[in-house]
Amino acid sequence: MTTNPSPQLWLYDTTLRDGTQREGLSVSIEDKLRIARRLDQLGIPFIEGGWPGANPKDVQFFWQLQEDPLKQAEIVAFCSTRRPNMTAADEPMLQAILAAGTRWVTIFGKSWDLHVTAGLKTTLEENLAMIGDTIEYLRSQGRRVIYDAEHWFDGYKHNQDYALQTLETAIAAGAEWLVLCDTNGGTLPHEVSQIVQDVVRVTGDWGLETRKNSSQSPIPKIGIHTHNDSEMAVANAIAAVMAGANMVQGTINGYGERCGNANLCSLIPNLQLKLGYSCIREDQLTQLTEASRFVSEVVNLAPDEHAPFVGRSAFAHKGGIHVSAVERNPLTYEHIQPEQVGNRRRIVISEQSGLSNVLAKARTFGIELDQQKAEARQILQRLKDLESEGFQFEAAEASFVLLMHEALGGRQQFFEIKGFQVHCDLIEGKETSNALATVKVAVDGKNILEAAEGNGPVAALDAALRKALVNFYPQIATFELTDYKVRILNGHTGTAAKTRVLVESGNGHQRWTTVGVSTNILEASYQAVVEGLEYGLLLHCQAESALKA
Amino acid sequence: MTTNPSPQLWLYDTTLRDGTQREGLSVSIEDKLRIARRLDQLGIPFIEGGWPGANPKDVQFFWQLQEDPLKQAEIVAFCSTRRPNMTAADEPMLQAILAAGTRWVTIFGKSWDLHVTAGLKTTLEENLAMIGDTIEYLRSQGRRVIYDAEHWFDGYKHNQDYALQTLETAIAAGAEWLVLCDTNGGTLPHEVSQIVQDVVRVTGDWGLETRKNSSQSPIPKIGIHTHNDSEMAVANAIAAVMAGANMVQGTINGYGERCGNANLCSLIPNLQLKLGYSCIREDQLTQLTEASRFVSEVVNLAPDEHAPFVGRSAFAHKGGIHVSAVERNPLTYEHIQPEQVGNRRRIVISEQSGLSNVLAKARTFGIELDQQKAEARQILQRLKDLESEGFQFEAAEASFVLLMHEALGGRQQFFEIKGFQVHCDLIEGKETSNALATVKVAVDGKNILEAAEGNGPVAALDAALRKALVNFYPQIATFELTDYKVRILNGHTGTAAKTRVLVESGNGHQRWTTVGVSTNILEASYQAVVEGLEYGLLLHCQAESALKA
Repeated sequence: MTTNPSPQLWLYDTTLRDGTQREGLSVSIEDKLRIARRLDQLGIPFIEGGWPGANPKDVQFFWQLQEDPLKQAEIVAFCSTRRPNMTAADEPMLQAILAAGTRWVTIFGKSWDLHVTAGLKTTLEENLAMIGDTIEYLRSQGRRVIYDAEHWFDGYKHNQDYALQTLETAIAAGAEWLVLCDTNGGTLPHEVSQIVQDVVRVTGDWGLETRKNSSQSPIPKIGIHTHNDSEMAVANAIAAVMAGANMVQGTINGYGERCGNANLCSLIPNLQLKLGYSCIREDQLTQLTEASRFVSEVVNLAPDEHAPFVGRSAFAHKGGIHVSAVERNPLTYEHIQPEQVGNRRRIVISEQSGLSNVLAKARTFGIELDQQKAEARQILQRLKDLESEGFQFEAAEASFVLLMHEALGGRQQFFEIKGFQVHCDLIEGKETSNALATVKVAVDGKNILEAAEGNGPVAALDAALRKALVNFYPQIATFELTDYKVRILNGHTGTAAKTRVLVESGNGHQRWTTVGVSTNILEASYQAVVEGLEYGLLLHCQAESALKA
Repeated sequence: MTTNPSPQLWLYDTTLRDGTQREGLSVSIEDKLRIARRLDQLGIPFIEGGWPGANPKDVQFFWQLQEDPLKQAEIVAFCSTRRPNMTAADEPMLQAILAAGTRWVTIFGKSWDLHVTAGLKTTLEENLAMIGDTIEYLRSQGRRVIYDAEHWFDGYKHNQDYALQTLETAIAAGAEWLVLCDTNGGTLPHEVSQIVQDVVRVTGDWGLETRKNSSQSPIPKIGIHTHNDSEMAVANAIAAVMAGANMVQGTINGYGERCGNANLCSLIPNLQLKLGYSCIREDQLTQLTEASRFVSEVVNLAPDEHAPFVGRSAFAHKGGIHVSAVERNPLTYEHIQPEQVGNRRRIVISEQSGLSNVLAKARTFGIELDQQKAEARQILQRLKDLESEGFQFEAAEASFVLLMHEALGGRQQFFEIKGFQVHCDLIEGKETSNALATVKVAVDGKNILEAAEGNGPVAALDAALRKALVNFYPQIATFELTDYKVRILNGHTGTAAKTRVLVESGNGHQRWTTVGVSTNILEASYQAVVEGLEYGLLLHCQAESALKA
């Protein structure tokens, strides 16, 4: 090696175990397998898969991975120490963790004396025995052991001597990593920093002694596991690493119980791009944004658009001053290059937009507006008017393009809607009920009347409209609705509230989003569906003209 | 004073200015006034109201506050320094900020040489003159000045001497606070800590010299303004305070451009409960959760349920082990007492729930389940089955109670739905279109057929149902739908996706939430609306029985 290597850190993902404790999150076995394989691709070396003793879903998950293992990552099974007053070999949870068939296991034990006496209702000595026995037993069965010291920071502040005894017991029994957990998430970075420094120093001394006595136990390595209850999970993990920890536990998107775990999507770029640690390869880092969205999609939670590094808004520029400056020199308003984490810069159109935003945005769609002419100001005004009615074009760029074409007098009329009817019958006890839609459309002066059914009113509207138009525009057969989002704008007037619908459509190559707003959810959906078809036809025309040109 | 007073910190809220830069957030003047008054009640001493020179909405906002001022807080107008090559008196933006009529103004200027030469395209000397002239002019007009040093940390790292010159100029011109801004949000806490220590030391020396020369300028105070692009906004603000800063800028719920600003809802409890600083009164701190939700409601954004301290999940306990432990001793799993910030502990029902959660939850609704009997396990099983279909009871506790009553054989049948029909006509060009619903209901063996219109299909369904039932149950007249939420469960099958509807209902005293799931949005809505009425009737019955007993 001629270059000086970056210090190595081990990432440990617990999305599939601690992450699934998040309120509102639930996953199938298939979901868990898809996420595990994605994390493997991302280069995460340790992936905690679940607690096979506590959850039948997790048992199956590990079996499936035995049949079709991950490529690079170590999959880790998680479990507590044995219960009080029994042997480790008699503990069914430990049999379950052995049956998971992983090389590595993570065992969590109590560090805080209060938890031992008030929670487990046993003696401090028995708790040490539980830690030691469990780890020794798993080692005797050929497993490598990571020890999670639960409530470490609270325990250490409460009874430092006892807390350190639990670590010493874990090392003596053969644990290779000691992971310090801020389980309640209440610790602040300056405390984490101080306590991790203490532990690194103390365990360093033990390590040297242990090595003299036994060739089996290497010097233990220190990990950090933090929660976000004080909005400090990422800061605490970084503080621990700077104090000597070399394993970092966290979850994708910071999912986890209560306020979540340390967010790997923020930790990895901070550690790697700002502090120079080596975690994953550069090309893997460029997959981070995609991995974040993949996981949020699989667990079926809306992605946090404002998430650091990977959020849709993370490199979005809204204020007029920022936009002109960032176009001149990105460094002035961006702390990293968005491409390093697979994200991209966006110029946002909104009520607050200055004229420079509108011009910049139009340019990204190939429309050159003249700042001096009235059209640009008209577009800005129209935008502000519609937004005050509840429309939002930040996410509905296709509707924004149609609006620009209209202002410039160039909006092509592919079809004209004459009317729509929707009828829906709901009968108690029937599993699902179909909706019927009738649509009247004029194309080239001809009126077409069509009807279609769907398993909901919006699906029926969409089907009727396509049926009416496909004879005139065969390319409509390749269009599909890929996403459909509903937002109630002013919730506190109940069902009379205004509804904003965003529809994402695709044609196999491209995707685009359109918006509709109404107090009637069907009308809002219809507006967005109609503009989605119109924009698809516009793209098709542009592609044809480009071929001819 | 007999007790040792806590060190005083000044909070500075910029929700109404920097916060509104958040993508997706827009506010009316009325919204801004409501938020300002709420922040005043909360005890925030400085409230930045907007940039009157850049935004006509902000001009009006300040005029309205001149007529009806805040009780305690200083409302602050925000503006940049004058532009290059003009006098401060000729700068229209500064005339606008004076017209705002506030005692305090915040002026931001450039600290980073790159921004001066590449952004403003002027000389480093002219930038110093812009800072000095602007502040001197505002002082001459009787204003007190806070100076925001934009891009401070990047500027200081780039060209330390020049950055310090900008601060020195601001002090000499009469600024009373120097606020160090991490505008791009890329700085890490150890850097913030070091740089703030430097600034505190250097400006401390200047302060002493300045005092000798002039009685006008007191020792400047140092503020911190951070952004969350590295997920470090709160940690950075705390690091700055521990290094000597005594003003903290932030926003409610961390709203702000890109990834947001420092979140005051996390900063205040960390500073006050954990570090012993004095920010707001204890009784004001107990309003924090309510203030957070109030602001999210006014700006019409869904509250972050996982937000530290103030989120609905912040003190929620899901895992079976946690629940039994926290019931024994809250300290074991809670870093602060939820009541200190006006939040509360919750036991969560979900797919992962153990039996102990179900029992604990049932108890909070006055239902005593016997752990040994089959019902408890049946409820748990039914819960898991429904959740795998897409139902979610974490937020729909009223539906959960009905489910428990059903399992126990005690679900009262107030009415039986025989059928529903919805018809909706959409005509292009008409502003809104009415929906018509017909409903057939049986009560006490009698069939009732009713029809009603609404400005959307769900409103029509709801109206028809009430019309049919109100003669039998007059208390229905007091019920109202207070919130209606739609979530598309598997977005990527377009309009055929499954829809989950949450309906919140109220009777003037209580509120409750019910859930419905279907591929047909009307059916899902109908399920939730029907259960909302049923639960309201159940509450009424229980209240009547309690009166009789």
